[in-house]
Amino acid sequence: MTHPLNTGGDRGYLRIATEEACATREQIDGYLRLVREGKADRGTTSLWGFYGTSPSERATTIVERLLDLDDRRIADMDATGIDVAILSMTAPGFQVFEADEAKAMCGRANDALAAAVERHPDRYVGMTSIAPQDPEWSAREIARGKAELGFKGVMVNSHTKGEYLDEPKFDPILRACAEAGQPLYIHPQSPPDSMIGPFVESGLDGAVFGFGVEVGLHLLRLITIGVFDRYPDLTICVGHGGEALPYWLYRIDYMHQAGVRSGRYERMKPLNKSIFGYMRENVCITTSGMAWAPAITFAMDVLGEDRVMYAMDYPYQYVPDEVRTHDLLKISDAAKKKLMQTNAERVFGL
Amino acid sequence: MTHPLNTGGDRGYLRIATEEACATREQIDGYLRLVREGKADRGTTSLWGFYGTSPSERATTIVERLLDLDDRRIADMDATGIDVAILSMTAPGFQVFEADEAKAMCGRANDALAAAVERHPDRYVGMTSIAPQDPEWSAREIARGKAELGFKGVMVNSHTKGEYLDEPKFDPILRACAEAGQPLYIHPQSPPDSMIGPFVESGLDGAVFGFGVEVGLHLLRLITIGVFDRYPDLTICVGHGGEALPYWLYRIDYMHQAGVRSGRYERMKPLNKSIFGYMRENVCITTSGMAWAPAITFAMDVLGEDRVMYAMDYPYQYVPDEVRTHDLLKISDAAKKKLMQTNAERVFGL
Repeated sequence: MTHPLNTGGDRGYLRIATEEACATREQIDGYLRLVREGKADRGTTSLWGFYGTSPSERATTIVERLLDLDDRRIADMDATGIDVAILSMTAPGFQVFEADEAKAMCGRANDALAAAVERHPDRYVGMTSIAPQDPEWSAREIARGKAELGFKGVMVNSHTKGEYLDEPKFDPILRACAEAGQPLYIHPQSPPDSMIGPFVESGLDGAVFGFGVEVGLHLLRLITIGVFDRYPDLTICVGHGGEALPYWLYRIDYMHQAGVRSGRYERMKPLNKSIFGYMRENVCITTSGMAWAPAITFAMDVLGEDRVMYAMDYPYQYVPDEVRTHDLLKISDAAKKKLMQTNAERVFGL
Repeated sequence: MTHPLNTGGDRGYLRIATEEACATREQIDGYLRLVREGKADRGTTSLWGFYGTSPSERATTIVERLLDLDDRRIADMDATGIDVAILSMTAPGFQVFEADEAKAMCGRANDALAAAVERHPDRYVGMTSIAPQDPEWSAREIARGKAELGFKGVMVNSHTKGEYLDEPKFDPILRACAEAGQPLYIHPQSPPDSMIGPFVESGLDGAVFGFGVEVGLHLLRLITIGVFDRYPDLTICVGHGGEALPYWLYRIDYMHQAGVRSGRYERMKPLNKSIFGYMRENVCITTSGMAWAPAITFAMDVLGEDRVMYAMDYPYQYVPDEVRTHDLLKISDAAKKKLMQTNAERVFGL
């Protein structure tokens, strides 16, 4: 890809931020309507009841930034030195609406994002949002996103009304990603009602903790059901340092194998590879929200230099210092270029 | 403490394993009765429905080993080179029974464990089990465990019927630990019904994943409610590499501070220290189930050499090779002695 800064000037690499959020007004208004009418689940009520109505600086600034796809966002990218942002519609996407409304709203949002990418082709890359409530429609939207909108990946905001993509009815979505040769990015939303109880009653349902464990669970559900045996070339991305799965890897692998051997669960069948193998060959993680040298270098060590990509998590964690944290990592220049630029170029086919 | 091996012979340190499980026959029969009568929660039904009835080698061997507090356990310790085992009653302890039954059964189990420690004083250290269903009784049992039974710590198998120790009614338990100067060890059990849905339907409710995130949540609930501001000298231990909280630390700290500033949750008040500070000063973690050099050294780096202790997780993860993994860690001799021996001696007051 050509870029005004070409190779990042003196620094020798572009900064490509891979998990950057935006929203349409219609989308946010939709959340607020669900909350107002008591039709939102507990997590959406907690999340958007806060961001949509709180007078706090955090909430108001984040909503303003989510909605801006032009001057303000580009200025923020310039101020922090982000060369390219890979954009997707913020959580919980369109997955909390009734299917017909979700599809209509999701299609319009994808069109709006494509228009923004067209206005700023050197700065933005788009991902296709979906409405898993209708898996076949979502599969068609993934194909449309690639063929007509120029999108480079697929975004799902984790569970859909408490259902996970390992359930057979969602297979068309996974197949469409594999056929498009595009990565599926699983972004957090709040845990579903069937899980959120002890998180939300203690204020730990959001990005502070609930988000991460729910996405880690989602990815592990997909791995253990054998999604990568079904689609060996599929790549799944998760943010936030891999939602802690890299740290858990030894224990997960041990207990998964013990579970398979003992036949404890009908669902848990032998897989072609170890969990470790899938994490190193089919999963990519990003550093969104985890701009911390120990965690980044740990993840690079255990997953490999090719599996970790930079992300800012704009606007939720818009902290210019965090870019510097990445720039100053004590890793080789080659590894840093992979982290900041070329892994994203490979995974998203830029 | 005197010990037949004195200083671990040539190796220069004792191996003190800090999270080692046992059970009484009455306790296991109690679980099976709850499961049979349909009175167990979903997690206990999954866990003990498996361990208590499966003909698999894993299940039958583990139950046999849990019940043995003499020859077989000592032989296994000798075979793997564990000098001292810090023992506690296995999950879910007595926390799934009605209060009166729980207290009676828990008291008898504490007596039985004390008798085993008396039979093998150089090899075993005991922890007091409690029945948080009755917080005042549990406080008295903690005092009795210290004064009469010679126990050195307090074991809680995480939530009690879906309730967590940060709730005000459990304060007597925390106060009793602080007054006894003994650490509170939070061991996993299955997530409560209010959380377990997407875990148990996918076979991920147990040690493979659900255990760890539930205990991580429990510890985070205690930290964020300010337990260590209330009891600045209290130590809480968690196993399994700190249940991933060390890896999450940067994000948790950032989002906790953002949450406090924005006033999102009534419950989330400013604390005296950062989450990072409490993790480094009031929390100790053990390596149970995480015999993996990258995770152990990561935890030692971010929490400090004084905060990480060896554990095997016998009999659930009885893997002689894992002892060797610890012995061969590329850390200083001084750090290794802390990990294997002296941190446990300090924390448990041996």
